[in-house]
Amino acid sequence: MNDVKKLKKAICEVGDRIYKRGFAAANDGNISVRLNENEVLCTPTLHCKGFLKPKDICLVDMDGNQIAGKKKRSSEVLLHLEIMKARADVQSIVHCHPPHATAFGVAREPIPQAVLPEVEVFLGEVPIAPYETPGGKKFAETILPFVQQSNVIILANHGTVSYGESVERAYWWTEVLDAYCRILILARQLGPIRYLSAEKTRELIDLKAKWGFTDPRLAADFQGDIRNNATFRHTWKDSGVEARAFDPPGDA
Amino acid sequence: MNDVKKLKKAICEVGDRIYKRGFAAANDGNISVRLNENEVLCTPTLHCKGFLKPKDICLVDMDGNQIAGKKKRSSEVLLHLEIMKARADVQSIVHCHPPHATAFGVAREPIPQAVLPEVEVFLGEVPIAPYETPGGKKFAETILPFVQQSNVIILANHGTVSYGESVERAYWWTEVLDAYCRILILARQLGPIRYLSAEKTRELIDLKAKWGFTDPRLAADFQGDIRNNATFRHTWKDSGVEARAFDPPGDA
Amino acid sequence: MNDVKKLKKAICEVGDRIYKRGFAAANDGNISVRLNENEVLCTPTLHCKGFLKPKDICLVDMDGNQIAGKKKRSSEVLLHLEIMKARADVQSIVHCHPPHATAFGVAREPIPQAVLPEVEVFLGEVPIAPYETPGGKKFAETILPFVQQSNVIILANHGTVSYGESVERAYWWTEVLDAYCRILILARQLGPIRYLSAEKTRELIDLKAKWGFTDPRLAADFQGDIRNNATFRHTWKDSGVEARAFDPPGDA
Amino acid sequence: MNDVKKLKKAICEVGDRIYKRGFAAANDGNISVRLNENEVLCTPTLHCKGFLKPKDICLVDMDGNQIAGKKKRSSEVLLHLEIMKARADVQSIVHCHPPHATAFGVAREPIPQAVLPEVEVFLGEVPIAPYETPGGKKFAETILPFVQQSNVIILANHGTVSYGESVERAYWWTEVLDAYCRILILARQLGPIRYLSAEKTRELIDLKAKWGFTDPRLAADFQGDIRNNATFRHTWKDSGVEARAFDPPGDA
Repeated sequence: MNDVKKLKKAICEVGDRIYKRGFAAANDGNISVRLNENEVLCTPTLHCKGFLKPKDICLVDMDGNQIAGKKKRSSEVLLHLEIMKARADVQSIVHCHPPHATAFGVAREPIPQAVLPEVEVFLGEVPIAPYETPGGKKFAETILPFVQQSNVIILANHGTVSYGESVERAYWWTEVLDAYCRILILARQLGPIRYLSAEKTRELIDLKAKWGFTDPRLAADFQGDIRNNATFRHTWKDSGVEARAFDPPGDA
Repeated sequence: MNDVKKLKKAICEVGDRIYKRGFAAANDGNISVRLNENEVLCTPTLHCKGFLKPKDICLVDMDGNQIAGKKKRSSEVLLHLEIMKARADVQSIVHCHPPHATAFGVAREPIPQAVLPEVEVFLGEVPIAPYETPGGKKFAETILPFVQQSNVIILANHGTVSYGESVERAYWWTEVLDAYCRILILARQLGPIRYLSAEKTRELIDLKAKWGFTDPRLAADFQGDIRNNATFRHTWKDSGVEARAFDPPGDA
Repeated sequence: MNDVKKLKKAICEVGDRIYKRGFAAANDGNISVRLNENEVLCTPTLHCKGFLKPKDICLVDMDGNQIAGKKKRSSEVLLHLEIMKARADVQSIVHCHPPHATAFGVAREPIPQAVLPEVEVFLGEVPIAPYETPGGKKFAETILPFVQQSNVIILANHGTVSYGESVERAYWWTEVLDAYCRILILARQLGPIRYLSAEKTRELIDLKAKWGFTDPRLAADFQGDIRNNATFRHTWKDSGVEARAFDPPGDA
Repeated sequence: MNDVKKLKKAICEVGDRIYKRGFAAANDGNISVRLNENEVLCTPTLHCKGFLKPKDICLVDMDGNQIAGKKKRSSEVLLHLEIMKARADVQSIVHCHPPHATAFGVAREPIPQAVLPEVEVFLGEVPIAPYETPGGKKFAETILPFVQQSNVIILANHGTVSYGESVERAYWWTEVLDAYCRILILARQLGPIRYLSAEKTRELIDLKAKWGFTDPRLAADFQGDIRNNATFRHTWKDSGVEARAFDPPGDA
């Protein structure tokens, strides 16, 4: 099996996971993977992600023009291409509508930090990009201010987009985010959520450095509370984001 | 494989999806597909939709008389036939009890508009038809006032019905609706839901026109707020529908 | 395949459904089926219902003595035998812990009636039996006051038991009940649930009569509101049941 | 198939269950099993538990040094080894993030006792260990105060760990705990949860003795209310645990 076939199969496999988890109803969601510097494989429009076959996958150039594939490429691939242009390290992108993360995007509630260690290490601060009508260039540009500093973005009143060095990794950050948002919603039914201390949060950020992960809080000029959405807070006003459901971390 | 076999298999496949998603407990739900102008394939009564075989599928005429099939046809096929008579473009109909959408039908809470772009484009405004005892002609007629202007209807204190140009498409609108209702219920736990602006909602309706979808809000004589259930609001009183859980969209 | 093999396979198949739906964690739940007037097949103790093989199924007599099978029979089969003795028509029994129905049993909240037509027709009024330590004869006897008038019983602070003329049918009533309880819990998040009118509820009870189903409300001497738990309400005090979450149906 | 192969397959099988149930997103979770007094099989780091193959399983010694396996062992195996050193009877350990149990760990809400009989018999009182940065020895030591008296522990702001005499049994206690926490969260939406009486709880503890299970409440010197977290209550202050969502059991 050559590389193109393998990548097409990887897209189908992640499509299946997305559909089974309820992250994409009907024909929702789209997945892309970089083939080389000029070509990108992506999912077709109006096709259920749970029933993709390798032959359904489209090929586009970096301007979104379709090069190969019998089915029409998704119009949302333009968002994927903007991310690939901005991040040379990104090989694959997954966009879908995971219910718990999308609920945060509909309530425009910021994602709390410093609650679960794996989430802190793998996701860091998750931004909410402002709403724009999907499909066009203006939509694709809404995510650009966030793309360098995060591997997963919530799109206000829409869904999520995540990206990484392989199709599986790109999908993983979506899965981690939705599992986290589910736990937050469940915990809130029991009482106020409890935060990690600033000291313990710092230990996690230091682990990220040690393991080769990046985090805006590792920057020399980072300022503000490492547990309280300091990196993307200045974008809240434009996206209509406001903390209502969760109290901020207290002292400690 | 001839067309009849393919259609029977498509019914079984969608039955499996309905059951796996928890949209139909035990023998709940029914599915139909038009074979020609006089004949309709439909699911049998008292049979779990998750374990259908092509040989279980019944054949009825447009009056609901059974023509073929060893098992007895569902009594709710009369509802399906009314929709097919009213909409020549409809080839298939799916009725089931998706939990989140049915919860709206039990609380008689109207489905908010202008929250998620794909929902706006694919579903538009979703009506709630008044309750009637299932199975008879009077039941079938409850959905007639809504059938021209929507592809998915919530049946008060009962479930949903959706329809389209193929079995898969007919099912899709149910899946989109239930995923949307789930996100709405989750978002409401975090705070008030946020609506798209009137301007952004208008862009979505214009996209529908461009893509060949219909929407009552595209009519020349449409009046009222495009984000606030203007098309079916006049039916709320008869169906006992009243907005209690979600505030209407504000200005903007 | 002879009958015994078929019945063993049917038990395994329903075990798989129970486990996949999350109705039985770990080794929870048990299933039985009558083989003849003296012998009953049942599931073994300490075995996950999601991974049963026909060779795991035990055989017991009507006193619960094990006749065949390498694995030890579940101690809860005594409950099953009491039901079979009381109801000659019952061929199979399913006991498990479906989460939404069990939540009603833990809150001791009565199951509302007159909300969904299929539930009214297939389940009717669902009683909550008083709590007793599982396994013994005293436990088995807690359900006797309910067994003639219902095909599904919630066991307070424990789970559910349902029974019918086949393994699949016995399971169905559990599945219908849990799907109903899920919809009730979801609807309540949106606002007060809405009831069917007394007139429309009467039509459903008349349908039951027509279709050959029994219902305590069809009895000549039935008294009280057909929509308001009239049959089992007198048992609430002993079981600690009290309506707190749902308002009763109003006039109409 | 020799024993090593069987144990590797058992790890993969439980990995699949964990992933399918949503107890481990992306590469979350880890599983180990004792091979002999010096060697332990464990899952690799950065590998999805839902797609493990026997060849992916690592071998480590009791200090955590990797002996065999192409993939790098999970850093969290140190926690597993501490448990195995403390409990000679434990053959296998499962760590993951089941959403409902983890929600209790994030809200630091103690797990109520005396609600469901099977939970009382199989789990007993479930402690919440204080938070520590995962991976190191200090993290592993947080669970030591609880390891003798419980087979399942919630890790504050992290997840769960459970252990037993086989891979399946180790997993079972996680599954039972999460199903229980789910029922508690659902029941609380309906009203206050109802507790078993002290007398009926005592009957369950006596059953545990009879069946050969241990329970701190069976100790001669046990003091306090058997229904009210008497064994681990003294640890709440250090772990930040405080009962807010559930009222304690009343008299009876």
